[in-house]
Amino acid sequence: MTRTTSTKLRATSTKAETTATKRPRRASPPAGAVTAVALDPASSAPLHRQVYEAVRGAILAGRLRSGSKLPSTRALAAHLGLSRNTALGAYAQLLSEGYLRGRIGSGTYVADALPERLLLARPRPEPRPSPSPGDGALSRRGALVAGAASPFRRAAAPLGPAGWAFQVGVPAFDAFPAAVWGRLMSRRWDRSWRALVPRCEPQGYAPLRRAIADYLVTARGVRCTPDQVIVVGGAQQAISLAAEVLLDPGDPVWVEDPGYTAARSALVAAGATPVPVPVDEEGLDVAAALRGLPARLAVVTPSHQFPLGVTMSLGRRLALLDWARSSGGWVFEDDYDSEFRYAGRPLAALQGQSPGARVIYAGTFSKVLSPSLRLGYLVVPEGLVDAFVAAKALADVSSPSLEQAVLSDFMAEGHFARHVRRMRVLYERRQAALVAAAERELRGLLEVRAAPAGMHLLGWLPAGRADGAAAERAAANGVRCVALSELRVRSAGRGALVLGYAAAGEDEIDEGVRRLRAALR
Amino acid sequence: MTRTTSTKLRATSTKAETTATKRPRRASPPAGAVTAVALDPASSAPLHRQVYEAVRGAILAGRLRSGSKLPSTRALAAHLGLSRNTALGAYAQLLSEGYLRGRIGSGTYVADALPERLLLARPRPEPRPSPSPGDGALSRRGALVAGAASPFRRAAAPLGPAGWAFQVGVPAFDAFPAAVWGRLMSRRWDRSWRALVPRCEPQGYAPLRRAIADYLVTARGVRCTPDQVIVVGGAQQAISLAAEVLLDPGDPVWVEDPGYTAARSALVAAGATPVPVPVDEEGLDVAAALRGLPARLAVVTPSHQFPLGVTMSLGRRLALLDWARSSGGWVFEDDYDSEFRYAGRPLAALQGQSPGARVIYAGTFSKVLSPSLRLGYLVVPEGLVDAFVAAKALADVSSPSLEQAVLSDFMAEGHFARHVRRMRVLYERRQAALVAAAERELRGLLEVRAAPAGMHLLGWLPAGRADGAAAERAAANGVRCVALSELRVRSAGRGALVLGYAAAGEDEIDEGVRRLRAALR
Repeated sequence: MTRTTSTKLRATSTKAETTATKRPRRASPPAGAVTAVALDPASSAPLHRQVYEAVRGAILAGRLRSGSKLPSTRALAAHLGLSRNTALGAYAQLLSEGYLRGRIGSGTYVADALPERLLLARPRPEPRPSPSPGDGALSRRGALVAGAASPFRRAAAPLGPAGWAFQVGVPAFDAFPAAVWGRLMSRRWDRSWRALVPRCEPQGYAPLRRAIADYLVTARGVRCTPDQVIVVGGAQQAISLAAEVLLDPGDPVWVEDPGYTAARSALVAAGATPVPVPVDEEGLDVAAALRGLPARLAVVTPSHQFPLGVTMSLGRRLALLDWARSSGGWVFEDDYDSEFRYAGRPLAALQGQSPGARVIYAGTFSKVLSPSLRLGYLVVPEGLVDAFVAAKALADVSSPSLEQAVLSDFMAEGHFARHVRRMRVLYERRQAALVAAAERELRGLLEVRAAPAGMHLLGWLPAGRADGAAAERAAANGVRCVALSELRVRSAGRGALVLGYAAAGEDEIDEGVRRLRAALR
Repeated sequence: MTRTTSTKLRATSTKAETTATKRPRRASPPAGAVTAVALDPASSAPLHRQVYEAVRGAILAGRLRSGSKLPSTRALAAHLGLSRNTALGAYAQLLSEGYLRGRIGSGTYVADALPERLLLARPRPEPRPSPSPGDGALSRRGALVAGAASPFRRAAAPLGPAGWAFQVGVPAFDAFPAAVWGRLMSRRWDRSWRALVPRCEPQGYAPLRRAIADYLVTARGVRCTPDQVIVVGGAQQAISLAAEVLLDPGDPVWVEDPGYTAARSALVAAGATPVPVPVDEEGLDVAAALRGLPARLAVVTPSHQFPLGVTMSLGRRLALLDWARSSGGWVFEDDYDSEFRYAGRPLAALQGQSPGARVIYAGTFSKVLSPSLRLGYLVVPEGLVDAFVAAKALADVSSPSLEQAVLSDFMAEGHFARHVRRMRVLYERRQAALVAAAERELRGLLEVRAAPAGMHLLGWLPAGRADGAAAERAAANGVRCVALSELRVRSAGRGALVLGYAAAGEDEIDEGVRRLRAALR
């Protein structure tokens, strides 16, 4: 069914023509004498693209030599039975890409130096991998960093038969507001790509910083203005920047034990020395911390400790703020899943506890929307804003502008608040499903207690059972979860599995619990 | 013209109704008795959203108390003259956000704990900025990082009257392929948001890594497979990661002098110690470097030195690779604007010079497409891939998934190669415009010489004139440029202005040169 106009003629660029390139005097050669153009009207490529490809191919193959003159667009169009606009479009593109020189209408020539010559370092060499460097290639810090890879590798693994059950730290991807987000993104791009494409603001897009400040003041009792907000690429970057600004290499940092492994590793990558401090039912044991190495920074999750889920008591909060004030230290408050509370009233953020609190506050959109957006925020005291903005600029200049603009629209137009409310209801239901399934299936194997907040529960193993082996058997049965002992450094205690329930549908939760039962029996 | 259906009735939730919530026995109250709903058919908000807002407002205002039963959707619809689907939509949303509990059709009640109570730490406190921390809040490293802020601050400044003339390091934003990019983005989002939203791959999206490897092998003579490519947030992040993986805090690093200030600062932020090494017409002076502090890493721009524009000679390349091999050090090759060559044939990348070259290769899409995308890449030896991927994961987990997918489509479908070719022609023209305007207007004031590559030229001041003062006067006249001396650490030499020409249209270039003339006279 394809009707093909094929004109195969040899190239006729001659020495005389090459000479003529510098001072064109002759009439253009006849169109058919210049190029071999095979047009396929049934092709999905538009005709001007086909003409472009044919002429470019003739140039690259040497059939049209540097300096030879091309037929006029009128002659070429007549010869090929095309509209002149089609020929004009093809020539314009060839000119704009450097294959031709001159001007359409007054003589067009094959360029002297082709783009390929200027762009290609060599003609397609064989790719050969470099040999691997021997041992000792990494610095001491590099070796520690390399050793921290595994949890992230696992996160990118393909879904098991139980779907998202029980991956920790991820939201309900099936409930991502894709239609709204797509609509806001198209609108932003269409209306303001010209403003967004040059935009690189290390502190972040101002309307987004306003929306974040409004939200934090209202929902979390944070004391801040938009000028104190810095948009970052998630909680992980937030802690790296804090280490760079507040710590010198080697400085000790108090971290929760058990606690978030990746936060500890980020501190190591920034050259700092994490010092594990035990956590009890009141949160980080400040008295125990004070008996150990004097720190310049304490990294805590006061609203909902990861992974134990406790809320830091008022006494501990005040003791921690006192320590910071009297020692000149800083508290890094990671408020990672404070959006999801199912009962009781949340304590306000530590940051808002007192006006002069020496607190760096961090939060993320990874747990509310999606980690694939890579957006989070820091709130820092006014006197530290410049230093944190500089650290962000040196780390990666800024976060991408389009995502920030779309998120600011998403928040300003009320979608964010609605989404959080919907997710709260959904996660409460998913938690209930996990607790109910565990009561049905896991009696005597794993004790899963309901919790008033968050996106994960702890499943406690019978005393004496090792959680590392249990997590491995769960993985072998297609269920993801994290052994509590993996999150411990020096602390010890009863074994447990950390079970994320936010991303898993109720069917996936049921299937996951059945597989856990098989794994644990 | 707005026809408003207004029904204002007091709320009638009573103790009896509250009790009834636990065991509903009574028929639903009449619709009009429950809520005050003002519908505006001329409003842009759909009717179901108006019903939702009215009921939510009544709940939040206390007119509908916790536990009170709502009228059936059928009764409400009849009362308000709406379709039942409209009422159903509003109730479904209120249920999904946690304002109501129960089930549509079998009794719907105001929830016991409202989302606002669970979500708001306190009712809208006054935002009060924290007082600024006193002196000594920053670590020594933090103070160095803070001192590095200024160049980035300037980049975000509003455009002057000469537009983008002569901002350094930015591409032609007016030629950004916005239509194609927008189309690819919509297509990606529509077709594969479900796959993209959960995606967090520290090493980067595999099809993008393939496209980058293909491009580098062909265009830059890099020796690599896609497995050696790591997608990062630009060249700035690339150097931070290299420092974390290859250096311990305090380790010396050779850097070019004059050179790229932000690279030096990124090394400082990572705890390393930059050691300036002079640059001459052959590039980094390796012999001079060897006489100084023994480094573990050398950061160089061999293809087109920033800012001097020289290409590193073969002799220096071999000497640098020899040093790395014999000392166990590493070369960090920043190939920042290698795409834009106007004459001659480019030397292949240092990385491809020999099979076992101890080179970390870095490039960016900031200079070819836009810095607002925050995408670049590292190519590392196979034995270092895991460590670099871990460092990326600890820095910010991964780069955003959607941008990566769109860019991989952009490259795989040939748009990238076409765009590079077009920009090469455009930048060549802009450079020629700058040289021509300078010859016309700046004779005796600033000597601007053409160059065979890149996105900036040096304008040399008459001997003895200070370039810092000249750049300040230029800025006062609305022209951005960088004084060469700002990029020097220990080196000295004739003063010059670094003039970026890629982002400025020819009119802006002419205007910028006229303003430079006024500033320099």
